Amino acid sequence: MRVIIYGVGAVGGVIGAALVLKGIEVVGIARGGMLEAIREKGLRLRGPEIDTTVRFQCVSAPADIDFRPDDAILLCMKTQDTEMALEELREAGVRDQPIFCMQNGVENERLACRYFPNVHAVTVMLPGQYLAAGEVVTHGAPCFGMLEIGRYPQGSDTHDELLSEMLTDARIRSFFDPTVMESKYGKLLLNLTNIVGAALGTLEGIDDIRAVLVSEAEAVYAAAGITFRDVGQNEERRREFMIISDVPGVERKGSSTSQSLLRNTGRVETDYLNGEIVLLGRLHGIPTPANAWFTELGAKLAREGRTPGSVTRAEVTSALGL
Amino acid sequence: MRVIIYGVGAVGGVIGAALVLKGIEVVGIARGGMLEAIREKGLRLRGPEIDTTVRFQCVSAPADIDFRPDDAILLCMKTQDTEMALEELREAGVRDQPIFCMQNGVENERLACRYFPNVHAVTVMLPGQYLAAGEVVTHGAPCFGMLEIGRYPQGSDTHDELLSEMLTDARIRSFFDPTVMESKYGKLLLNLTNIVGAALGTLEGIDDIRAVLVSEAEAVYAAAGITFRDVGQNEERRREFMIISDVPGVERKGSSTSQSLLRNTGRVETDYLNGEIVLLGRLHGIPTPANAWFTELGAKLAREGRTPGSVTRAEVTSALGL
Repeated sequence: MRVIIYGVGAVGGVIGAALVLKGIEVVGIARGGMLEAIREKGLRLRGPEIDTTVRFQCVSAPADIDFRPDDAILLCMKTQDTEMALEELREAGVRDQPIFCMQNGVENERLACRYFPNVHAVTVMLPGQYLAAGEVVTHGAPCFGMLEIGRYPQGSDTHDELLSEMLTDARIRSFFDPTVMESKYGKLLLNLTNIVGAALGTLEGIDDIRAVLVSEAEAVYAAAGITFRDVGQNEERRREFMIISDVPGVERKGSSTSQSLLRNTGRVETDYLNGEIVLLGRLHGIPTPANAWFTELGAKLAREGRTPGSVTRAEVTSALGL
Repeated sequence: MRVIIYGVGAVGGVIGAALVLKGIEVVGIARGGMLEAIREKGLRLRGPEIDTTVRFQCVSAPADIDFRPDDAILLCMKTQDTEMALEELREAGVRDQPIFCMQNGVENERLACRYFPNVHAVTVMLPGQYLAAGEVVTHGAPCFGMLEIGRYPQGSDTHDELLSEMLTDARIRSFFDPTVMESKYGKLLLNLTNIVGAALGTLEGIDDIRAVLVSEAEAVYAAAGITFRDVGQNEERRREFMIISDVPGVERKGSSTSQSLLRNTGRVETDYLNGEIVLLGRLHGIPTPANAWFTELGAKLAREGRTPGSVTRAEVTSALGL
């Protein structure tokens, strides 16, 4: 099984590097500075207990890959880029190969199902960072990250099993699970504060804001009949396999939404995090004003190129009526 | 109520022109040759009983419009262009205004609900053509077209009522209906042969192909618990309000998918017609090989710039095992 990493950012970079370290054949699809850096110097992986550089083939687009029947394709771009990625994969001849959706949110799997028959969902618990070209960081130890893997919308097959084994062997502790979407919905609850941290520049003292966002989401899940399970800090397996730890010389820069603002990418994935709750609310008649407010805020901050911390707590509490 | 027509093609053009003829304020959003032609010479509307040219304001993007609270926004682009349109509308300040999804398929409403709270579905029965810049045609008479309008996912409100009245008065016979999505799912069954006509260059002698496509769709609807109703040629109201008729000097060029191939737009909406059946099949465990084959064919024909009629009946029947 060759592994195609589509989107070599924090998650794709750490997973790709971990697999290369175990001798697995990896092909990355990356853009701009990341692509150049990997081609020139390889990819540096830093973690609490590791600092090494790996080399692997990296291309700029699926069209540059001669896809094989035994490829596994890991989608590691943000949701706003998924549809174009799927089109390019189809155009490059991908057909029955397993597609693993590693992204936050719950929309990627549905998008992929329109294009491909063999779609898998992955819940990713990987405290990664990508802030410089050619360099990714994980704060997880002893394992770099922890995953749940299964078929979408449910079930599991040998592809899940095989990838789980390969990744676990590569220090990404993976569990295959036929109800993986339940943990993705649980993860989504954690991601609702990504935009809060990005806006305020801190996650300190936001318990009241988090409570409002999560309570709207839980009401929406209940109305939609969606089952979820907690994958947060209190989850037992985290304590065994992946403690979030310091990395020498690396400062934690916050969630992927904060990192998107820092890299000034022009878009953030809030539409598919808080925006998912808003969508479900509109479909099922449940008001979600706090998530709607943050969804719009995310689009605005990204559009205007604002940096993390450019919104005050007073603006937020006033808008939310707290 | 001012009406914003986003996408002045066959449907948007006929509806926009009809409203202008009744003195309604219309702003069009169009691209390329259509935009230039409308600005220079207005929009020519031809039908079985009409041939006239109307003038109205037309811009290239939502950013050029100063949106008002009483605007109604009609989405008339193809589904593959909807997401970008929604982003541009949000960026231009649209917020609570009613968004009417006039497109084929059933995905646009869901896309719009992620961005806006006030989303409406419209089932469009309008035998229109757009083959030349500045000129649209309807083959419907005495009414130019027939619509059903309601809120998404269900219900109806004063916006539906108001738009229905305005359009009916403008010779687009409109019914407001709180279960409008049922007729959109019915319309989708009719649209499953758009790609067949585009591929073969004719809709003659395709009853066996249609039967396979529709039977897959009906199985999928049943598994998904989707209710639909027939809006086809046998629908009673069509005989009263809208007979498909010849237009002097105009040859019928086939479905919107055929027209997309003829205009060489690079994409067709098959992903959201046959592809919707494929997606639902994958979500509910129902095989849809015929719709999957035509979905891929649509993408391929568009990508390769093939014209209608470039596929033989033998290729189709062999692929489908007929």
